[in-house]
Amino acid sequence: MMMSASPPSTIPAPPERIPPGVLAARDYERLAEQCIPADRLAYIAGGSGEDWTARANSAAFGRWSIVPRVLRDLRTGHTRVRIAGEVWAQPIGLAPVAFQKLVHPRGERETARAAAATHSPLLLSTLATTPLEEVAGLLSPEAGQPRPWLQLYLQPRREDTLALLRRAEAAGYGAIVLTLDASIQLASHRALRAGFRMPADCVPAHGSIGVPASALPAGASRIFQGAMAQSARHEDLAWLRGATTLPVWVKGVLDPADARALADAGCAGIVVSNHGGRTVDGVAPSLSLLPAVREAIGSHVPLLFDGGIRSGADVFKALALGANAVLVGRLQLYALAAAGALGVAHLLQLLGEELQACMAVAGCASVADIGPDRLLAVPDFNAIP
Amino acid sequence: MMMSASPPSTIPAPPERIPPGVLAARDYERLAEQCIPADRLAYIAGGSGEDWTARANSAAFGRWSIVPRVLRDLRTGHTRVRIAGEVWAQPIGLAPVAFQKLVHPRGERETARAAAATHSPLLLSTLATTPLEEVAGLLSPEAGQPRPWLQLYLQPRREDTLALLRRAEAAGYGAIVLTLDASIQLASHRALRAGFRMPADCVPAHGSIGVPASALPAGASRIFQGAMAQSARHEDLAWLRGATTLPVWVKGVLDPADARALADAGCAGIVVSNHGGRTVDGVAPSLSLLPAVREAIGSHVPLLFDGGIRSGADVFKALALGANAVLVGRLQLYALAAAGALGVAHLLQLLGEELQACMAVAGCASVADIGPDRLLAVPDFNAIP
Amino acid sequence: MMMSASPPSTIPAPPERIPPGVLAARDYERLAEQCIPADRLAYIAGGSGEDWTARANSAAFGRWSIVPRVLRDLRTGHTRVRIAGEVWAQPIGLAPVAFQKLVHPRGERETARAAAATHSPLLLSTLATTPLEEVAGLLSPEAGQPRPWLQLYLQPRREDTLALLRRAEAAGYGAIVLTLDASIQLASHRALRAGFRMPADCVPAHGSIGVPASALPAGASRIFQGAMAQSARHEDLAWLRGATTLPVWVKGVLDPADARALADAGCAGIVVSNHGGRTVDGVAPSLSLLPAVREAIGSHVPLLFDGGIRSGADVFKALALGANAVLVGRLQLYALAAAGALGVAHLLQLLGEELQACMAVAGCASVADIGPDRLLAVPDFNAIP
Amino acid sequence: MMMSASPPSTIPAPPERIPPGVLAARDYERLAEQCIPADRLAYIAGGSGEDWTARANSAAFGRWSIVPRVLRDLRTGHTRVRIAGEVWAQPIGLAPVAFQKLVHPRGERETARAAAATHSPLLLSTLATTPLEEVAGLLSPEAGQPRPWLQLYLQPRREDTLALLRRAEAAGYGAIVLTLDASIQLASHRALRAGFRMPADCVPAHGSIGVPASALPAGASRIFQGAMAQSARHEDLAWLRGATTLPVWVKGVLDPADARALADAGCAGIVVSNHGGRTVDGVAPSLSLLPAVREAIGSHVPLLFDGGIRSGADVFKALALGANAVLVGRLQLYALAAAGALGVAHLLQLLGEELQACMAVAGCASVADIGPDRLLAVPDFNAIP
Repeated sequence: MMMSASPPSTIPAPPERIPPGVLAARDYERLAEQCIPADRLAYIAGGSGEDWTARANSAAFGRWSIVPRVLRDLRTGHTRVRIAGEVWAQPIGLAPVAFQKLVHPRGERETARAAAATHSPLLLSTLATTPLEEVAGLLSPEAGQPRPWLQLYLQPRREDTLALLRRAEAAGYGAIVLTLDASIQLASHRALRAGFRMPADCVPAHGSIGVPASALPAGASRIFQGAMAQSARHEDLAWLRGATTLPVWVKGVLDPADARALADAGCAGIVVSNHGGRTVDGVAPSLSLLPAVREAIGSHVPLLFDGGIRSGADVFKALALGANAVLVGRLQLYALAAAGALGVAHLLQLLGEELQACMAVAGCASVADIGPDRLLAVPDFNAIP
Repeated sequence: MMMSASPPSTIPAPPERIPPGVLAARDYERLAEQCIPADRLAYIAGGSGEDWTARANSAAFGRWSIVPRVLRDLRTGHTRVRIAGEVWAQPIGLAPVAFQKLVHPRGERETARAAAATHSPLLLSTLATTPLEEVAGLLSPEAGQPRPWLQLYLQPRREDTLALLRRAEAAGYGAIVLTLDASIQLASHRALRAGFRMPADCVPAHGSIGVPASALPAGASRIFQGAMAQSARHEDLAWLRGATTLPVWVKGVLDPADARALADAGCAGIVVSNHGGRTVDGVAPSLSLLPAVREAIGSHVPLLFDGGIRSGADVFKALALGANAVLVGRLQLYALAAAGALGVAHLLQLLGEELQACMAVAGCASVADIGPDRLLAVPDFNAIP
Repeated sequence: MMMSASPPSTIPAPPERIPPGVLAARDYERLAEQCIPADRLAYIAGGSGEDWTARANSAAFGRWSIVPRVLRDLRTGHTRVRIAGEVWAQPIGLAPVAFQKLVHPRGERETARAAAATHSPLLLSTLATTPLEEVAGLLSPEAGQPRPWLQLYLQPRREDTLALLRRAEAAGYGAIVLTLDASIQLASHRALRAGFRMPADCVPAHGSIGVPASALPAGASRIFQGAMAQSARHEDLAWLRGATTLPVWVKGVLDPADARALADAGCAGIVVSNHGGRTVDGVAPSLSLLPAVREAIGSHVPLLFDGGIRSGADVFKALALGANAVLVGRLQLYALAAAGALGVAHLLQLLGEELQACMAVAGCASVADIGPDRLLAVPDFNAIP
Repeated sequence: MMMSASPPSTIPAPPERIPPGVLAARDYERLAEQCIPADRLAYIAGGSGEDWTARANSAAFGRWSIVPRVLRDLRTGHTRVRIAGEVWAQPIGLAPVAFQKLVHPRGERETARAAAATHSPLLLSTLATTPLEEVAGLLSPEAGQPRPWLQLYLQPRREDTLALLRRAEAAGYGAIVLTLDASIQLASHRALRAGFRMPADCVPAHGSIGVPASALPAGASRIFQGAMAQSARHEDLAWLRGATTLPVWVKGVLDPADARALADAGCAGIVVSNHGGRTVDGVAPSLSLLPAVREAIGSHVPLLFDGGIRSGADVFKALALGANAVLVGRLQLYALAAAGALGVAHLLQLLGEELQACMAVAGCASVADIGPDRLLAVPDFNAIP
């Protein structure tokens, strides 16, 4: 993401009401082109290159259908989950989406208000356009709202990373989520063709994803000796875990052997993700590797999932295939653009009710009841009209 | 189904003649948009959400092709089946479709006339717009017409259920079919967008699918503590079986283990169904679980099937995959809308002749000859132009 | 096929020249709508019902791709095959297509001239519009042209069948091919909608596919007690084999067990076919059952194939999957319509050269070299753009 | 390729600048229709017949997605490969594409300048429109640029082949690549319909693909006794290996048994290729047989791949499935048409950076790290929107 900044152009705030015609969580995606300027939407909706992975992330859910059960007593049914010692009202969190002022003038503050209202977990991006203390100030753990977590990009200088950690600890963050898969991000052609440039007033509040590399020697690779030289390695992770009192999660894991190694190394939990298809086009859909990751790490390591979630049925499928909870990224931004905090809260409510309906149909009284036996693969699924 | 009622608007009766251009049973579906107001059609044709399951129900038949046989002596061929002691002329019954006055001013009375004329089994919905005694009065078991069966939604108060049972017993119904999968019905977005509201004169003659829940306590789930609190449980089924002299079937079963448990519990038979895809979108196509259900319950438990049937070839495939007979729902309503009793009778005749043609080509002299060896899976089937 | 006859309307003969723009055998199909009146084309191109099986017959070839080989010495390469003691220049024959005057005023005479010119085997339909003696008179076995074969529908009266056999024997026919799968032929909806009726001057020269059944008793089935009562049974086949000195083949076999039984019963050979998808829609594509039929009958029983052939590559694939030779039906009629005898001869030449090119690429010096190891299944084949 | 020559019509040179809007290697294909006259583009883009194999070559890559890894130390990452003793900067070479003056007035000279500038391997076609000495003169092995290789069609007269070998040896070529699969090339219908004829000034500089066969005896096949009589056989290969001091590769191998035999016979290396789908339509996609060829020859025989490469991700997939390096054909010509040497160099740079990005995401520090475990098959892949 080396786009240079264009002049400031703050987007106006949407009206504070549920947009008409939103019948399901998925509808916020349909609204997006009415609510978000075309170049910004191309940047947000796009993945990398031809956006194949971004599309495949969503399409992968279509392979699975839900197997109902009947006659279960679901009167005590609920969607609560305990993730790393904290109780979430539903297994649905807000993914750490960067630059939220792209779609709303108050950006992450609105998202935080929605998290507070719905008691939903919020993961704040290092690239947030709102200081982490301000976000934390909008959440009240003492009122049962989950503490926010901080998504972390390792900063080129360790002291900068340490400073961030200290701020997060002081502000009451509940965990650090180290992103491992963002060193390479080939831009979406759709975004490039739409002429997207980051507006000048969309400024990360805490740090960047990495500083421009110093001039490379002749013959050096911008990829290997450039971007990847700043990429996290095992020793960085070990250092990080020693440098903070907070539990450290890792995000951006798809390889089962990687996942097992990270679990063995003592990571607090794993986020299965391909960064929304934004690294390199052609990467496997997140969902396709979820079962193998779960199998590799066993049942006790907490596992979050993101990538392509558009409905409560998608949440159900991700849980059935091994996730303890999911994160929503693009939908979050679409709802934020459409109706601010109210939109995000409404989205979370819709996803939760859709999930509950799936659980009810499948005879699951709790998230723990949602196993792979509740899914059936559909042959030739993408061609169903 | 919490749609509030709109003002009365009785639909006019169609002409009593076979509509021109109906070459096959499937053609009644094509006629529907000429015969049924758009909002009502959206409600009838729609499933839940984006209607994926409703479409997948039909698409699932395309996976299977029929393997012909030659040189069989089929001179004694017939389609008669014995279902729970009663003989049906063909293995094709009328599914318990609610609110038939939506498409014809005389509603279920027309359907009953068609059943009588063709000696077809009729399953009457609890949500019928015609009293069950009136329907029974149009059928003559003494003339060899199968007795009607009553589809039952458990009423919130047991005395109401008992009253229904007594009426059904008194009116000569042959069986009770308890629907197990209707507690959750997320509306079709297509129907919502078409602005469908149940007309005020479409009033269930016997009862409802459940009363609105009393006010839920704060934090309670409309799904779990609301709708599902009224859902049938095993003890309800046991109570029901003790409360009537009629055989009790169960409808809405897709899970093989559920099916086996229900068979073991002494249910008279099982209807494999996903409620036409009307519960939650994303539920597995009915046909995809039919073979596993049959395998789970063994060959002796009677098994009906519904979901996506549009032709006699579809009937053949469902029989080959384990059903003893099938029920048709949407097609029934389309034929009713197009030509009243005559249309429904014509539909049943077309389905039967199409089934006979498949049997003849496959060398099957009776329904018992239709086994899974008569089907072959087609690779990449949905992409055949 | 109970369409009543419409008034005579002889179609004019096409110019006797290769139509411009025919680059491949398949192009004759493209020309058809220029050369054949729309209603007749609908009848010819259509299969049964929605024509799914007819389309699937062709689509099935797309599943297979050809595995090349290099460095083979093919200087002695050829396409000759020995079928039941007779040598064919190429493993490609003219299927017994009925009513050829539908597309050319001289009908089967033109086809016979093409067979003579190219030394191709011709199978004459019982429903030919040209007497079998006249067709035989256009072929010279003494000049190395294969003797024609007569496709036979059993006539309702055995004396009529015997008369046909005597005529075929006297006229020098080389074999009888008894069609087993034509008792049920549900019309193509496309043909019905196009208003096709058989023209009055398209009269079968020898007999019919069966006489209208005598009035059926009440309750009898038009399928079982009607059409199928006249269908061939094992005793008919035994009688036929005893009633003629000619070898008796059977046509219309897709079931492997049927094929084995027929081979064991001493049939001279088997034609794997689903009657061009004209019996009942939903029947399996011919190609999909070819390997199982070959496996069932072993390598020594002669096996012809028809259904969906549009190119020499299709011929190659059918041979690789077990056929000794193939028959072309619809393409034959399209070429006949486009350019009479010259068109049919050109078609046969194109198919042969396309086949030779496939053999050359696959390193096959003779048809015997074309085995299943020369094919590779393509995943997701029908969606390749 | 027996198209007769049309009058000269030299195409003007494109401007020497990177064309705007090229975001990825694949974009050069999109530009082609702006840069290349329609008839020539039809000839270049087309394969054989209906171009199915040409399309399937590209589509086959879509089946595979890339499995990322994290936390690898890639600071020493690079794309160098050692192929037959020579070091290539990246595993991407220029396929031997004939008649390059079709798209640029200086033809292969531009391509050679690009190879020199990027240190890329260049394979010169026998059918080049530039003499091999001139091409070699543009490359400086002493400056670390790989020596060119000469693709060879066996000439009808061995002395002509010997003369070519001597010229190649004298000019410093590094290897001979004998094409084995070009004897049969059925033209693309698209090219025929576009009216393509080879311009008179597109003259092969060294020889042809074979002389027109002498008049064939009656009854002889143009395929078997014509084209294939001139096709290379094992003794020709043995002769060739003895006739030159250069290592001899073979190109056009898809059959695993062929590949093993050629490796056992001492070939220097194998190029898995189906000639860009230009032989016979219906041949298997190159990629589909690559893993089996690699398995057949073991890990030590050098293996190049071509067929359908459009991106660095495609390069990555071919390497993961067994290739040591790949060749690009059509993309090369499109870039040449769009911007001459600069375009080809840009293309190679883009492919290399895209490959590096895939390697970085997959945690591969060198080409040797790219194994089949880095790929995951995607179900129903061609239907992903």
